[in-house]
Amino acid sequence: MASTPKVTALTDLPSSQAKWIKLQKATYTDAHGKERVWEIASRKTTGKAGVDAVAMGNIIYHPSKPPSTIVVIQFRPPVNGFTVEWPAGLIDAHETPEEAAVRELREETGYEGKVISTSPAVAADPGMTSANLCLVMVEIHLNEGDPEPEQHLDEGEDIQRVNIPLAELYERLEEFAKEGYVVAAKLYHWAAGVQYAVDHPELFRKSGKEKAA
Amino acid sequence: MASTPKVTALTDLPSSQAKWIKLQKATYTDAHGKERVWEIASRKTTGKAGVDAVAMGNIIYHPSKPPSTIVVIQFRPPVNGFTVEWPAGLIDAHETPEEAAVRELREETGYEGKVISTSPAVAADPGMTSANLCLVMVEIHLNEGDPEPEQHLDEGEDIQRVNIPLAELYERLEEFAKEGYVVAAKLYHWAAGVQYAVDHPELFRKSGKEKAA
Repeated sequence: MASTPKVTALTDLPSSQAKWIKLQKATYTDAHGKERVWEIASRKTTGKAGVDAVAMGNIIYHPSKPPSTIVVIQFRPPVNGFTVEWPAGLIDAHETPEEAAVRELREETGYEGKVISTSPAVAADPGMTSANLCLVMVEIHLNEGDPEPEQHLDEGEDIQRVNIPLAELYERLEEFAKEGYVVAAKLYHWAAGVQYAVDHPELFRKSGKEKAA
Repeated sequence: MASTPKVTALTDLPSSQAKWIKLQKATYTDAHGKERVWEIASRKTTGKAGVDAVAMGNIIYHPSKPPSTIVVIQFRPPVNGFTVEWPAGLIDAHETPEEAAVRELREETGYEGKVISTSPAVAADPGMTSANLCLVMVEIHLNEGDPEPEQHLDEGEDIQRVNIPLAELYERLEEFAKEGYVVAAKLYHWAAGVQYAVDHPELFRKSGKEKAA
């Protein structure tokens, strides 16, 4: 890299001059019929599907390597730092979440994914924003000796890929955080859920029909 | 409830008139030294600790009931609907994340929690906002016959508590979404991680030292 990215200025931005997001005041009635207000940040780009974005929870299968996942590292101006996230992106106007997931995975990682499940639209941070997303789980099946594919990045995008064995994901995210990377909450929560289930299997057994390991 | 809450008006809000959040334009230099801009929504309330909020991943132990967790349901104006989330809240100016976690858990659920771990500060939605949070895992130990405690809600807060066995969490969140509730992404990702580990234990075994079940 020629230089380390950094934010050099922050200035007030009126919603009318913003292309991507806006600030709004919601007037609402509460459960007792009383009128109240709330401050909201929204995306201007939400398409017909009503879902802003997809995140690709990806599982990579390889004949001789442990099952793994690809995370992406990129400079994110909102946090003025490098983030560790699952590949993700906004859904284009006429796309389904699954189409956006396959496209964005190809662009950011080069890999062809097979969609295995799509979550309902879940709220990114519902105390503050209407922004939402679908978690799309995708499988990537590799053959022995497959070369690392080319990314297909937009001009100005600079995204590093890191392959992490699934069994090490949680501890690797903790290490990234200690090294100064900003880990995305959604990926962290998924990994923390995995780790909790691995460390405390007795908490998650259905009563009366315990699963054999 | 006297009435069903709903958003009745959305109006443009200049950052200068907002109390909680603001819209900003970041000017930044990318890895090639080129100057670019990005639009950001930020909280105005971020305290000294640099962390906005805590979410309480809570595990409830009871002598005769299956291990469970409490989720909260409340009307959230940003999504104009009722959300399903773990208890959460903003960290006050002079609080640690752990102090905020115990306080907010008590306020929203009435329960006294014991903090067992605190995540690094993770980014709520780093493509759009600087907002961040810590996931604080807390244990709640109940005795046989303990009554459901009183909540300590602020004026205007109306928060329903729902106790869900951990083994059913993922499927219950899917059901909530089908019923029209808006599930928070962070809770959903944790539950999805748990479910993935339960359904695919072979993916998460450390090579060379597989864990006995």
